[in-house]
Amino acid sequence: MSAHFSINKRVEFADTDAAGIMHFANFFRFMEVCEHAFFRSLGLSVHSMGREPGRDSMEVGWPRVHASCDFKQALRFEDPVEIELNIKELGSKTVLYEFCFWKNVEDQEKRSLAATGKFTVVCVSWHGGDGKIKAVEIPSQIREKLEQVISV
Amino acid sequence: MSAHFSINKRVEFADTDAAGIMHFANFFRFMEVCEHAFFRSLGLSVHSMGREPGRDSMEVGWPRVHASCDFKQALRFEDPVEIELNIKELGSKTVLYEFCFWKNVEDQEKRSLAATGKFTVVCVSWHGGDGKIKAVEIPSQIREKLEQVISV
Amino acid sequence: MSAHFSINKRVEFADTDAAGIMHFANFFRFMEVCEHAFFRSLGLSVHSMGREPGRDSMEVGWPRVHASCDFKQALRFEDPVEIELNIKELGSKTVLYEFCFWKNVEDQEKRSLAATGKFTVVCVSWHGGDGKIKAVEIPSQIREKLEQVISV
Amino acid sequence: MSAHFSINKRVEFADTDAAGIMHFANFFRFMEVCEHAFFRSLGLSVHSMGREPGRDSMEVGWPRVHASCDFKQALRFEDPVEIELNIKELGSKTVLYEFCFWKNVEDQEKRSLAATGKFTVVCVSWHGGDGKIKAVEIPSQIREKLEQVISV
Repeated sequence: MSAHFSINKRVEFADTDAAGIMHFANFFRFMEVCEHAFFRSLGLSVHSMGREPGRDSMEVGWPRVHASCDFKQALRFEDPVEIELNIKELGSKTVLYEFCFWKNVEDQEKRSLAATGKFTVVCVSWHGGDGKIKAVEIPSQIREKLEQVISV
Repeated sequence: MSAHFSINKRVEFADTDAAGIMHFANFFRFMEVCEHAFFRSLGLSVHSMGREPGRDSMEVGWPRVHASCDFKQALRFEDPVEIELNIKELGSKTVLYEFCFWKNVEDQEKRSLAATGKFTVVCVSWHGGDGKIKAVEIPSQIREKLEQVISV
Repeated sequence: MSAHFSINKRVEFADTDAAGIMHFANFFRFMEVCEHAFFRSLGLSVHSMGREPGRDSMEVGWPRVHASCDFKQALRFEDPVEIELNIKELGSKTVLYEFCFWKNVEDQEKRSLAATGKFTVVCVSWHGGDGKIKAVEIPSQIREKLEQVISV
Repeated sequence: MSAHFSINKRVEFADTDAAGIMHFANFFRFMEVCEHAFFRSLGLSVHSMGREPGRDSMEVGWPRVHASCDFKQALRFEDPVEIELNIKELGSKTVLYEFCFWKNVEDQEKRSLAATGKFTVVCVSWHGGDGKIKAVEIPSQIREKLEQVISV
């Protein structure tokens, strides 16, 4: 498996705004689409069960505590875009993802960076029965998969 | 209480698309905002408890089985719009809402219809424990409130 | 070319709502994604130029005057869905599209209809210079392509 | 005029996701709604004309080059939320806005911070006729108004 993961998407009409470009908030939706596709590529779902030795199965979730985006070039209706995901830090309970948005992806010479973004997500469990979530250590089964793709 | 209910909203930038107008799918979101504001105006929430004599309390929901919209005039960024709700039919388990979108609402002479829409919603309960929803009769406590605002 | 066109999409997390299912307004966005993919499959863009013999080139657009959806089954996060487009009527200036949403598409026995929808779109031109759009006849170059896929 | 500006909004159903909370990307939409309401409060529109002495009138826009959000507490359907805007830096061509999301706003004791966010926006002009935007100095008429509300 390569050190990064990417998906290809197209800017849909509903993603644009009256300035004629992709609305900035949709870059965040696209990053999440990439994150979830990455999880599926590992054989996991975002709502997957992490089963630990000596522990009950546990449903974990990944709410974000930070999201940011730096915008360099506009994306327009029907533009193909490649969204690349890298893991920059893998903490005991957190993951820091970095994303790159590439435009003009069909032409290696024109290919250029449209935006970069970051998510810090926390591994949480609903375990406990009070309905509250709490940060938990990333289950080892998931950690092993994430370690395989961390950027070096 | 008058025979109709309305709210005032403004078209936000994220509601527009590259044609420079409110994206058509957002008319449906605006209708739902109006429906939920209507429920709150009755002292109910969309997720409210209907308590029937001789029955356990029951949480009801209102999924839509039909939604439609006819578009007459475009709405643009920052346009103020009045969304008017009328109940057209009140069945034992269903409600048919009609919506009107009014633009140029600040000027009685220019006030004109931008769109009309319809929702058919069904009263459902999660009662039963199998996690499945089923259509139920509209709780009498809610029905009484809806009857007060039905269009005649 | 077959008598219908379809695309495959996945329900993304941002498409869902607090009821745990795809928000109903997003069915309309998905139908438009299918409509635009259909246009691209014909070698056209929604903002394409229709060049008529004896006429200047003309940019045409396709605003919708009607959109509706009937909801039969919920779609959930990560559900694969096939959206099928059929042309039901081809008028001189209008097209009536019908859409079917198929779920459980990976299993022919479980494959079932989640929703059906309709768009009536009007061919318009910005020609004229006053910035106003007006309904125009569908350019023959486009009409020929649409006629090839009309349902019979 | 006070040193900050705020608006009150409610979390709508379409703003939530299958985790039962406001989808994180919608915090960015809410910040923009606040930014635009702030501009209107100054008697400006986001697409307003800045008229400089000795210069032609010039339409300026405010694309963002950076947006970020730190999430502290979830917002749920129908939650009232106050979004507060502060100007943190006023450059010659840029503005740095900071936003606070306050929940439980109806109860001073329970009032607490749900999220904080930042936008860096650049003043741009379409002046020049080639359809390209370029960063320009904030028109003095607008700068004067912004200076009145900068946080100290």
